[in-house]
Amino acid sequence: MIEDKNQERISLSDLGEFGLIDHLTKNFVMKQKSTIKGVGDDAAVLEFKNKKIVVSTDLLIEGVHFDLSYMPLKHLGYKAVVVNVSDIFAMNATATQITVSIAVSNRFPLEALEALYAGIETAASIYNVDVIGGDTTSSTKGLLISITAIGTIEDNSEVYRNGAKPNDLLVVTGDLGGAYMGLQILEREKEVFKVNPNSQPDLEPYTYIIERQLKPEARQDIIKLLKDLDVKPSSMIDISDGLSSEIIHLCKQSQVGCDLYEEKIPLDPAVISTCEEFNIDSTTVALNGGEDYELLFTVSQEDYLKIKANPNFTIIGFIKEKEAGVHLVTRADSRIPITAQGWKNFNA
Amino acid sequence: MIEDKNQERISLSDLGEFGLIDHLTKNFVMKQKSTIKGVGDDAAVLEFKNKKIVVSTDLLIEGVHFDLSYMPLKHLGYKAVVVNVSDIFAMNATATQITVSIAVSNRFPLEALEALYAGIETAASIYNVDVIGGDTTSSTKGLLISITAIGTIEDNSEVYRNGAKPNDLLVVTGDLGGAYMGLQILEREKEVFKVNPNSQPDLEPYTYIIERQLKPEARQDIIKLLKDLDVKPSSMIDISDGLSSEIIHLCKQSQVGCDLYEEKIPLDPAVISTCEEFNIDSTTVALNGGEDYELLFTVSQEDYLKIKANPNFTIIGFIKEKEAGVHLVTRADSRIPITAQGWKNFNA
Repeated sequence: MIEDKNQERISLSDLGEFGLIDHLTKNFVMKQKSTIKGVGDDAAVLEFKNKKIVVSTDLLIEGVHFDLSYMPLKHLGYKAVVVNVSDIFAMNATATQITVSIAVSNRFPLEALEALYAGIETAASIYNVDVIGGDTTSSTKGLLISITAIGTIEDNSEVYRNGAKPNDLLVVTGDLGGAYMGLQILEREKEVFKVNPNSQPDLEPYTYIIERQLKPEARQDIIKLLKDLDVKPSSMIDISDGLSSEIIHLCKQSQVGCDLYEEKIPLDPAVISTCEEFNIDSTTVALNGGEDYELLFTVSQEDYLKIKANPNFTIIGFIKEKEAGVHLVTRADSRIPITAQGWKNFNA
Repeated sequence: MIEDKNQERISLSDLGEFGLIDHLTKNFVMKQKSTIKGVGDDAAVLEFKNKKIVVSTDLLIEGVHFDLSYMPLKHLGYKAVVVNVSDIFAMNATATQITVSIAVSNRFPLEALEALYAGIETAASIYNVDVIGGDTTSSTKGLLISITAIGTIEDNSEVYRNGAKPNDLLVVTGDLGGAYMGLQILEREKEVFKVNPNSQPDLEPYTYIIERQLKPEARQDIIKLLKDLDVKPSSMIDISDGLSSEIIHLCKQSQVGCDLYEEKIPLDPAVISTCEEFNIDSTTVALNGGEDYELLFTVSQEDYLKIKANPNFTIIGFIKEKEAGVHLVTRADSRIPITAQGWKNFNA
């Protein structure tokens, strides 16, 4: 993004608010036909013809949602976009535009924000969303990112959290717990680094789980796959806070119960081995870890044949009447009530 | 908003993220036909048929944009909505929905957030916008509000910043400088209070300007009035950062110059008298004060008769060729180049 060799000498206060947003977004290209006007006016102008639109918004705060001591800014920008478009996909919709607002303290040089926006630009390009606006301002402490994502949806294809029915199958994409275990590795290495800044950790065995934490992907591919398979889920949610908390959301809003089978929960071998290394139960990690950005959905049993052999999907449970409650059926065949223990950062 | 008498004992950590957003938004009513689904899923769903939409977003940060020592939380909630819908009106559009995200430290009790949301609800009701979503999270320091506003626009009625033409008239609504002088009064009283907490200031003479600061209004009425008068401005912007900075935006984006006449700048008598009291030049205050949320626009001379006698409008300048530059024509008839000295909080 750097065109002018002298730019490294420009401070945020030299640029000011308007100069900064112009500078950071000047290379962003609008690709969506629905974007009539992007950054640069009081508001962006969009045109979706007869399509419905979906809107979602998320805040990411330094010290709460991310730690810059091991999260490179480019990755952070990328992840901030992923987190938001994931919510759009969880509606069975197509992401089209985002707005990006940042608040930043003067301790950040311009290069840091350029790195952040390079990550945003990369993700916007990969997920095919236009960055149509935003706000930049100073903060009294740390970095904060607020993103609003907009998407479009075909008629009658929206999928809410409240449509699960008894006898539906509970399905999850990908595997779970990786992002959380990646975070454990990063936290451990941070502590090691504090004691011995010259240590050269071998992170190679943890590549997959560290990438799940630092550079997660949203399951845009699944929305296309579901369409190709002619499967419309009865309910859907993305896994940002942990499987248990998302199952409780689906069941509460759909007014149903659920049996989740411990033995079916998909885990990557790297998650299992790292859990053993840390002496943590891998089911607990999958249930409460969060940040995997996989999709959790329910389908009617009629769709069983369409999804059963697909490696992207794992059937992990069975929807029941509300009165049956929400339970984990363990490998030992005991039934344990599931409670939300997902990310609850007001306790932090 | 309080239904349960025991609620005052509930802390933010008891409620958790999901409980909090449910609690704060449970009484919000969706009134817009375009709102298909509001708070409570991964994303809101909206349907605008064939209309174009406009999207704008703003961040408000404690210690940068507001000071809770004199800004009541209900007023802050109200103002946060106003600031955002003002950007929608500046496109000549109708505001329809907002998302509201807040980050808050544990020092805020639930009652404080209820007061904030009561202000948001009041403004949403007055400006007829639905609160369709948001995010609540903890912050490591202070309070932060991020709002995204959505609106609709009739075909061909969008007004950008870049349409001003030489010979157009420059028009402003209402009067300027009030919000800034209100802030000066509040800052002064804060200092007095520090020295003598028992002082009983007589703020009655400053009612208008304090209200301009604490409870500004966005000019929704002007959008309707312009339509009734059959006037489509050639360019428009809202005055959030100060007249000089907004004029420079319009001129830069329209590639024109401008003469602004000092004697024409509309000032309320309370602004003039408070400027005298503080020994500040009232023109400087109008040029650089900001936060008045009036609309600044240009019209072709053909529209002169439609607007000249309307008490809502003041013609304050004249658009010129780009080469003529952007100048203030003083009462003494000298020409001073206008530079942006609006709110530039990276210097703070």
